[in-house]
Amino acid sequence: MTKFMDIHQGMEGITAEELKAAHQADLAIEAEEGVHFERAWADPESGTVYCLSEGPSKEAVQRIHERTGHPASEVHPVPYSV
Amino acid sequence: MTKFMDIHQGMEGITAEELKAAHQADLAIEAEEGVHFERAWADPESGTVYCLSEGPSKEAVQRIHERTGHPASEVHPVPYSV
Repeated sequence: MTKFMDIHQGMEGITAEELKAAHQADLAIEAEEGVHFERAWADPESGTVYCLSEGPSKEAVQRIHERTGHPASEVHPVPYSV
Repeated sequence: MTKFMDIHQGMEGITAEELKAAHQADLAIEAEEGVHFERAWADPESGTVYCLSEGPSKEAVQRIHERTGHPASEVHPVPYSV
């Protein structure tokens, strides 16, 4: 299992409620790909959302995001963390 | 106090030890700007480091990173998180 940071662009104006709803949608089906979405952070001004997850591959992370209607612009493995 | 996500580019090949040392350097002086660096994640392949912090302004976050020798490429407020 590897940690991943993914980035969504074009989310200008996202609200706290919308972030929560998107995260819950991911949580609801993440187990089907062996992924777990740990946290997410939103900057409504630049329209950027960052998601921290753990899973078997970046493709697995992206498949969950695609199925819940918000594909990531980028998915990066982050093998090191503090 | 606001949460911030900052991004460092050009860190190709960064090691777990180097990430830890950079984070420790920030922690050592962060209080002087009222900032706290919570976590950091590194992708040595793309050379990207992500730092999650809390502080009074993005300029305060950047001042700590500059003083410890690793200015961020971008600092974004992330007022919403889950």
